[in-house]
Amino acid sequence: MVKPCKQSPAGMQCKEEDLKSFRQWGSKIPGHPENFETPGVEVTTGPLGQGIANAVGLALAERHLAARFNKPDAEIVDHYTYCILGDGCNMEGISNEACSLAGHWGLGKLIAFYDDNHISIDGDTEIAFTEDVSARFESLGWHVIWVKNGNTGYDEIRAAIKEAKSVKDKPTMIKVTTTIGFGSPNKANSYSVHGSALGAKEVEATRNNLGWPYEPFHVPEDVKSHWSRHTSEGAALETEWNAKFAEYEKKYPEEAADLKSIITGELPAGWEKALPTYTPESPADATRNLSQQNLNALAKVLPGFLGGSADLASSNMTLLKMFGDFQKNTPEERNLRFGVREHGMGAICNGIALHSLGLIPYCATFFVFTDYMRGAMRISALSEAGVIYVMTHDSIGLGEDGPTHQPIEHLASFRAMPNILMFRPADGNETAGAYKVAVLKRKTPSILALSRQKLPQLDGTSIEGAAKGGYIVSDDSSGNKPDVILIGTGSELEIAVNAADELRKGGKTVRVVSFVCWELYDEQSAEYKESVLPASVTARVSIEAGSTFGWQKFVGDKGKAIGIDGFGASAPAGRIYKEFGITAEAVIAAAKEVS
Amino acid sequence: MVKPCKQSPAGMQCKEEDLKSFRQWGSKIPGHPENFETPGVEVTTGPLGQGIANAVGLALAERHLAARFNKPDAEIVDHYTYCILGDGCNMEGISNEACSLAGHWGLGKLIAFYDDNHISIDGDTEIAFTEDVSARFESLGWHVIWVKNGNTGYDEIRAAIKEAKSVKDKPTMIKVTTTIGFGSPNKANSYSVHGSALGAKEVEATRNNLGWPYEPFHVPEDVKSHWSRHTSEGAALETEWNAKFAEYEKKYPEEAADLKSIITGELPAGWEKALPTYTPESPADATRNLSQQNLNALAKVLPGFLGGSADLASSNMTLLKMFGDFQKNTPEERNLRFGVREHGMGAICNGIALHSLGLIPYCATFFVFTDYMRGAMRISALSEAGVIYVMTHDSIGLGEDGPTHQPIEHLASFRAMPNILMFRPADGNETAGAYKVAVLKRKTPSILALSRQKLPQLDGTSIEGAAKGGYIVSDDSSGNKPDVILIGTGSELEIAVNAADELRKGGKTVRVVSFVCWELYDEQSAEYKESVLPASVTARVSIEAGSTFGWQKFVGDKGKAIGIDGFGASAPAGRIYKEFGITAEAVIAAAKEVS
Repeated sequence: MVKPCKQSPAGMQCKEEDLKSFRQWGSKIPGHPENFETPGVEVTTGPLGQGIANAVGLALAERHLAARFNKPDAEIVDHYTYCILGDGCNMEGISNEACSLAGHWGLGKLIAFYDDNHISIDGDTEIAFTEDVSARFESLGWHVIWVKNGNTGYDEIRAAIKEAKSVKDKPTMIKVTTTIGFGSPNKANSYSVHGSALGAKEVEATRNNLGWPYEPFHVPEDVKSHWSRHTSEGAALETEWNAKFAEYEKKYPEEAADLKSIITGELPAGWEKALPTYTPESPADATRNLSQQNLNALAKVLPGFLGGSADLASSNMTLLKMFGDFQKNTPEERNLRFGVREHGMGAICNGIALHSLGLIPYCATFFVFTDYMRGAMRISALSEAGVIYVMTHDSIGLGEDGPTHQPIEHLASFRAMPNILMFRPADGNETAGAYKVAVLKRKTPSILALSRQKLPQLDGTSIEGAAKGGYIVSDDSSGNKPDVILIGTGSELEIAVNAADELRKGGKTVRVVSFVCWELYDEQSAEYKESVLPASVTARVSIEAGSTFGWQKFVGDKGKAIGIDGFGASAPAGRIYKEFGITAEAVIAAAKEVS
Repeated sequence: MVKPCKQSPAGMQCKEEDLKSFRQWGSKIPGHPENFETPGVEVTTGPLGQGIANAVGLALAERHLAARFNKPDAEIVDHYTYCILGDGCNMEGISNEACSLAGHWGLGKLIAFYDDNHISIDGDTEIAFTEDVSARFESLGWHVIWVKNGNTGYDEIRAAIKEAKSVKDKPTMIKVTTTIGFGSPNKANSYSVHGSALGAKEVEATRNNLGWPYEPFHVPEDVKSHWSRHTSEGAALETEWNAKFAEYEKKYPEEAADLKSIITGELPAGWEKALPTYTPESPADATRNLSQQNLNALAKVLPGFLGGSADLASSNMTLLKMFGDFQKNTPEERNLRFGVREHGMGAICNGIALHSLGLIPYCATFFVFTDYMRGAMRISALSEAGVIYVMTHDSIGLGEDGPTHQPIEHLASFRAMPNILMFRPADGNETAGAYKVAVLKRKTPSILALSRQKLPQLDGTSIEGAAKGGYIVSDDSSGNKPDVILIGTGSELEIAVNAADELRKGGKTVRVVSFVCWELYDEQSAEYKESVLPASVTARVSIEAGSTFGWQKFVGDKGKAIGIDGFGASAPAGRIYKEFGITAEAVIAAAKEVS
């Protein structure tokens, strides 16, 4: 099933008529702002706190690009980022995370309006929200302004924006005290105007109260013309900027090419040649380290590639060695230091990705801590933000840190999420294959689950294979009819390979299949799938150090899935694998049972 | 596979010998503190920010129980809650959420030590964490004290605790400035002492520096005796309290019985009789409303039952009508107002649940926003905290709010999580059945996915059936051999029932099975499972308004799973169901295809 309606071609506007289809099937005006449905909507919000964190990402992107591309004689990147947030957003932890970073980074061109209406869905905020929000923002390094009459104090608001622009080293929060449902004589200042329609009677009373004599859905001519002037003004600004850029391109052809690639999302020709490849003779290594080789190779050829970790750079192996840290005084650099703020990190990366199609943000933490940032990751998927999630320590194989740190259900949980690619590469070639797809898929986020422990470079793995999601690594049968098919992913592909060797010695013909990414495999043709998993071969065993949930799809009624359906334990990795039965012996026993 | 080691019997202590098994298989001293492995550890932490939020829950529990049970002549509940948190915890959004609530609630007996060592895993906190933490806590309504010499300033620390205790209307944060790795001549004040062993040479240098002449793992006698005095002191305090309680029991038998039930977790006899039951004649209703009938019925008979919502009480239908709000001045009440702070809410409930076995906290939000609190929910599961998660608006059936609010992958994602029960009841009886199990399972958290939309009371549903996880709702075949089995959950069980009616009219024999809770079904005997889903009947169709991920397990290779594997849309519910093909027509077509 496809979504009912997609963003209309660039430049196409919403029409007055569209207002009538609010929240109806196929409408351009859905229940919450969605960048993929409505022209002019830049990010997808609704889940509280995402918007302000997106805004921090948008402001970061501007600051970074301005620092890299502006010249003393050409200010080619220059915009403010505006955001409105409410009481609910300010209660959410994600907003504190993102705003702490905005203060730390000194994002002076970020201006956030806090709609201080003292009402949330459960009523007056007095029942749950009595902190001093302004003082908190000041403690986070923000400049704070209070507009006391937000209902009609237009001059105050204008003055506040002017003041905010004059403060260049800090983001500004303008607390705007307002009345929710302003104008409604009986429902203003109450939670009942949040999500419910006013009702015909109260609409009438509100119209009378506000002196609004027009028909429903009618936009008066003066309002329309006042608003429409933005079309010509915007067109003039665009023409001006295009001329400026043409000049810039002549003077600074190299920078202009990079900036163009970042704006359009057109990747530089031949970028994929930078991806490293490996042979079975290449040294064994953890896929987190192989990932770092890819990250560093890609940052050299992709001008919009930048990212970082939530305080685990040295464990996630995410540092770009040729760059310094993006900081207040070095905004041209590309290593982002998010601190221990996973949820804020994800939403900031959504903002970066949606700022310019060629900005390719990656972010990292331990795979298990996707639990802290899932809200933002789902918005990546929904809003078509091609963020790359570098998630290391991807199983019980991380060892001593124990079950709080060991993912079990996480692979399954993301395989079930729409429009996100869940990769679990087994070695260097598959890691490069995952990155190749992740970079190409600018409208689909990717997650790479990577090992802490060393893994060998396997025979038969390839970038091309990985890009198909599931593929044959080895097979000693003929005529597409092996006795048994062994399926592995990530660190367990090696175990499948070892088990196959043993089984072959015992006279069985064995196919080994790597399932790097289920979603990509699902996209392949029926013919391809039949060539990898022939319907006639029902003797199948899968092995993965994680939940077996969902594996029935590939092993079928007669196959067997080896995995872990309880929590892990704190001990050295080798011991845990043995105790939990994630071993070649277990695969061999299962293979004999099913074949 | 079971976990290698479980908490030893009450009172059993860790031995000196155990120190040597740090982070080894079967050890009582795993990589992070785990309440289910180590006696004396009260909550499971490691994932940053959970601990301080647990502490808020523990302090809330104390305040609530003290307000309910203390008498002018008998202070039977009276303890402080202490917590240590680090720079990383203070960066996490969850800690800001929980601390904002602690300030709002005025939890004066909560004392948190902030280990201000300026080092996190990526190095000096200067790179990502430059906010004024003390000022932030003050803005949240906390009393703040700064101990400048946290390494050796014992008297300063004692004085700070004394001061903290004197401030009765606010929680206290004691910022203790320390040196990480204090005593290590070459590694102190660096991130390298966080998770890695010092190494033999540096251990030697540290021993010399600190003047520590003892053998490895040796606890000197004076230290041991200094520490061991707590055993006898604790025993004396317990005897004293027991005597006090005996007297209390005489004077206040009713209160004493309630408190005893809360402390021991022994539920009052016959409590389950309070659960409402329904017949097909009972009015159609949304399961969120039926849930509220259960919540209100249970709160009357279970003295430790309390909870609330993250600012959606009137949507989640979670208010207990006979109680007021738990607030600073009314801590004896049982409706908790969490504000829009899902992650903090979950972790606070973990603290409440782990405070006393008979405290049964429930908490609520829209099902999709479990994405915001999954970190805490996983800790409920791992640490055996029987929190009840009331999750309404459980599918595209919520309608107009659109895809940001419509869960798709969430059922699958929790079915894959260990030790948590994922319920999706179809009507009143199944909702009551889900609550019955959820209350009984004090060491397993439960999630109830509940509808926004009205559903009929179905023929054949029952509390007993729901408690088995999956059961037959109707069957017109004989000899356990229907032509086709239709499986539904929640709001789609009605669709399965309607499809069955049509198919039966067409001459097919049909079994309808409700799958309320996969985990409970998995626990049933092989015989029971064969009686519900006979291996010989491979014509099976499932229908659920969510991801089909994982359904192959029950529909098998020859069956068909009807669901939604992309994102939803903003429109009225009926229209969305039709557009996405979640209809009786689709079930009938699939049934004809497979049978």
